[in-house]
Amino acid sequence: MSERNRTVPRVGMVGGGQLSRMTHQAGIALGVDFSVLAAGPTDSAALVCGDVVLGDDRGLDDVLAFVKANDVVTFDHEHVPEPVLRAAEEAGGLLRPGRDALRFAQDKLRMRTRMAELGAPSPRWRAVTALEHVVDFAEEESGPGRPVVLKAARGGYDGKGVWMVDDVDQAREVVERAAAEDVPLLVEEKVAFSRELAVQVARSPHGQVAVYPVVETVQRGGVCHEVIAPAPHLDEDRALRAQRLAIEIAHALDVTGMLAVELFETADGVVVNELAMRPHNSGHWSIEGARTSQFEQHLRAVLNLPLGSPRTNAPFTVMANLLGGEDPEVYRRYLHVMAKDPEVKIHFYGKDVRPGRKIGHVTVMGDDHEDLLERARDAAAYLRGDDQ
Amino acid sequence: MSERNRTVPRVGMVGGGQLSRMTHQAGIALGVDFSVLAAGPTDSAALVCGDVVLGDDRGLDDVLAFVKANDVVTFDHEHVPEPVLRAAEEAGGLLRPGRDALRFAQDKLRMRTRMAELGAPSPRWRAVTALEHVVDFAEEESGPGRPVVLKAARGGYDGKGVWMVDDVDQAREVVERAAAEDVPLLVEEKVAFSRELAVQVARSPHGQVAVYPVVETVQRGGVCHEVIAPAPHLDEDRALRAQRLAIEIAHALDVTGMLAVELFETADGVVVNELAMRPHNSGHWSIEGARTSQFEQHLRAVLNLPLGSPRTNAPFTVMANLLGGEDPEVYRRYLHVMAKDPEVKIHFYGKDVRPGRKIGHVTVMGDDHEDLLERARDAAAYLRGDDQ
Repeated sequence: MSERNRTVPRVGMVGGGQLSRMTHQAGIALGVDFSVLAAGPTDSAALVCGDVVLGDDRGLDDVLAFVKANDVVTFDHEHVPEPVLRAAEEAGGLLRPGRDALRFAQDKLRMRTRMAELGAPSPRWRAVTALEHVVDFAEEESGPGRPVVLKAARGGYDGKGVWMVDDVDQAREVVERAAAEDVPLLVEEKVAFSRELAVQVARSPHGQVAVYPVVETVQRGGVCHEVIAPAPHLDEDRALRAQRLAIEIAHALDVTGMLAVELFETADGVVVNELAMRPHNSGHWSIEGARTSQFEQHLRAVLNLPLGSPRTNAPFTVMANLLGGEDPEVYRRYLHVMAKDPEVKIHFYGKDVRPGRKIGHVTVMGDDHEDLLERARDAAAYLRGDDQ
Repeated sequence: MSERNRTVPRVGMVGGGQLSRMTHQAGIALGVDFSVLAAGPTDSAALVCGDVVLGDDRGLDDVLAFVKANDVVTFDHEHVPEPVLRAAEEAGGLLRPGRDALRFAQDKLRMRTRMAELGAPSPRWRAVTALEHVVDFAEEESGPGRPVVLKAARGGYDGKGVWMVDDVDQAREVVERAAAEDVPLLVEEKVAFSRELAVQVARSPHGQVAVYPVVETVQRGGVCHEVIAPAPHLDEDRALRAQRLAIEIAHALDVTGMLAVELFETADGVVVNELAMRPHNSGHWSIEGARTSQFEQHLRAVLNLPLGSPRTNAPFTVMANLLGGEDPEVYRRYLHVMAKDPEVKIHFYGKDVRPGRKIGHVTVMGDDHEDLLERARDAAAYLRGDDQ
C-alpha cells in the first residue's frame, strides 16, 4: 500500500494479543499499513491481521527487525526489556511511547518514585530488599493487624505479581522466593477504598491530550470483570481532579498514545494504583461508547495526528469481560445471547478458551447503568457457560 | 482457529472490495473465521484481511474451490455469473444469499418483472430488443418530449449501464451498441422524483428481519455523494410503508443478508429504483450510527444468528463518500480534517486514488442534519483535494 499511497505510514504493534487485534480494526478505518509482531500464528491479532510478522516479541533481533520495517512502533504489552527498547531507539527506530516513558509502566518502583516526585496521591509504599523492610513498613505505616501488599516491581513468579500479606511468615515466603527468582519487590499499604476507578488520556507527541470520562472498574480476585462508563454517582469535582491528574501524569512522563491510570476511590479522594501506557481493558467500552475508540485514539496519537473527540455516544456504556469457563465452544452460545438481547455487542478474541482467561468482552449502551450492568453480566455469564 | 474453537464457522466473502474490507472488521468482533476471495493482493480487503485467497472472483474454478473451503459464502458484488453460482450450489456449497435470490439483483429485467408480480410501486418499464420498443414506450408511457431511461439488464458497456435518452438518434445508438455487445436492455420512464431514498433490511434464513430507518441518498451524476440517516422531514406513514415494502421484498425474494432497496420519492409515494443484496453504500452510516452496523448484521444473517438491533445511536448520522480527486496522497490531508473536526470519522479503503473513484467515506453523528451534512461534505471535499 505504501508504494501506491506513498504518505500512508507503516505502523507496527509489538505483541499479538487482543489489544493489537482491536487496534487492527481501528487501523483498517484509518487506512494505515498496520502490522503485528506476534509470537505465533494463533495469537489473537495474528488470526485476523493482514500483515503478521512471527517472532519473539521480547527478543532483540526480532524487535529490531520489526522496528526497522515500520515508520513507527507501539506496544500491546509492557514486556519488551529495556535493553531491547534502547537498542531499537539507538538504531533509529521510532517507539511510541518511547523507552523513557515506558520504563514507568514497566517498573513499579520507578513509577512510585515518580508519582511521589509529582505529588500524585499514592498509597504509602517502600522498596523491599529484605524481610525487615516489610516488618518495619507494616509497623510504621500500616495499622496494627492490617495486611500489607507486596508487589513485584517487574515480572513476578507463579504467574503472580501481587501478594496480600497478613503476617511475618507470609511476608518471609514472598521475600525469599522473590530474592531467589531475582524479582525486585515493594510493599504498599492496603488502601481502604470504596471502589476502583480508572481514567484514560491520550497524548500525542505534539503534546495534545484528550481525556475520557472517569470509569468505574469492578474487580474480582484481581481481575477486571466490568467497567461502567462514566462511573455512576461520581462527584463532579473529584472526576475533574482525576482527569487533570491523568493529564499531568501523561505530560510529566512524556507519554505518547493511551495512558490508563487505575485509581482507588477513598473517603478523601483518589489514589493512584497502576499505570498502563497502551490501550487498556478499562477502555474497551469506548469502541461503541465514544466518538473515538481508545484504539483509534492510540493510533492517532502514535501517528501524531490530531486526536479525536472522546465524547460519549450514550449516557452510560457498560462492558463486561468474557472470562473462559469450562465450555470451550463459545460461538454456539451466541444464539441465546443475541436472541435475548439484540443490543448487546459481542467481542470474541478468537483465543483458546481456558478457565479464567480473558477471551472476549461484551458491551451495552443506554440510559440506566444498573440495567446495563445486569444485561452485560448476564450475557458474559451465559457465554462463559454459567447458565448451562 | 476452527480447530481450536470447533464451532466457529468459516465465512467466505467473494470479492475484495471495500464491502469485504468493512465486513472483515465486523467479523473480527464476532470472532468468526473470515476470508475473502480477491482478484489481487492490493484489493481493498486483501490489504487488511488475515485470510486472503487470490483468484478470479467470477470464475468457476476459483469460486468453487472457495465455496468448498468455507461453511458459508457471501458476496461483495453481484458479478458472479449464474452458471458459476449454480455449480457452487450443486457442489453442496452454502451461498447466502442463494442463487434464486441473487438473480433478482443481477438482472434488472427479472427484478422489474418480479416487482410487478408483487405489486411493488415501480416506474413504467418495458423490455427492449429493438429500437421500436423504445420509440413505442416513449410515445405510450412517457410524456411527449420527456426523456426515457435505457438500462442494461445486466452488465453494460464503456463502464456504463444507464443512459438518459432524449431522442430517437440517441436511443438508436444505445440499442445498436448494446446489441453488438450482447447486453440485454430495458427502458424505463424517467421518474419525476423529489429526492432519492433507500431502505435496508436484513433477513436471516430463519426468516427474521431487522429493518433500518429510511435514509436520504444524495446522488450527483449517478454517484452517491451523501447519505442522511434517517431521511429528514420524511412523512412517518411513508417511512413505515417504505420499510414494510423492503421487508415484503426480502421475504418474497427469499433474501439472506442485507437487502438495500433504492427508492425515488415522488408526490404520490415511493417507487422502487434498484435492489442490492449485500451491504450497500447507503448503509455505511450504520458503522457508527446504529447499534448494529450493516456489516455485522449481514454476517449475523448469513450465519443464521439472531439479528442485532438497528436502533440509531444519534438523532442523525450523515455519511459522505470520499471520491478520488487529483491528489493521490489522501493520508497527508488527514491532519487538517482531524484538527478541524475531532468528531468526523474517516474511513479510507486503501485503494489507489483515481478521479471519481470511491476511495473512502466520512461519517458524523449529531442532532442537526444540516450542520452534519455541511461538516461531512467539507471533510470529504478537503480529503479529495478540492480546497487546495
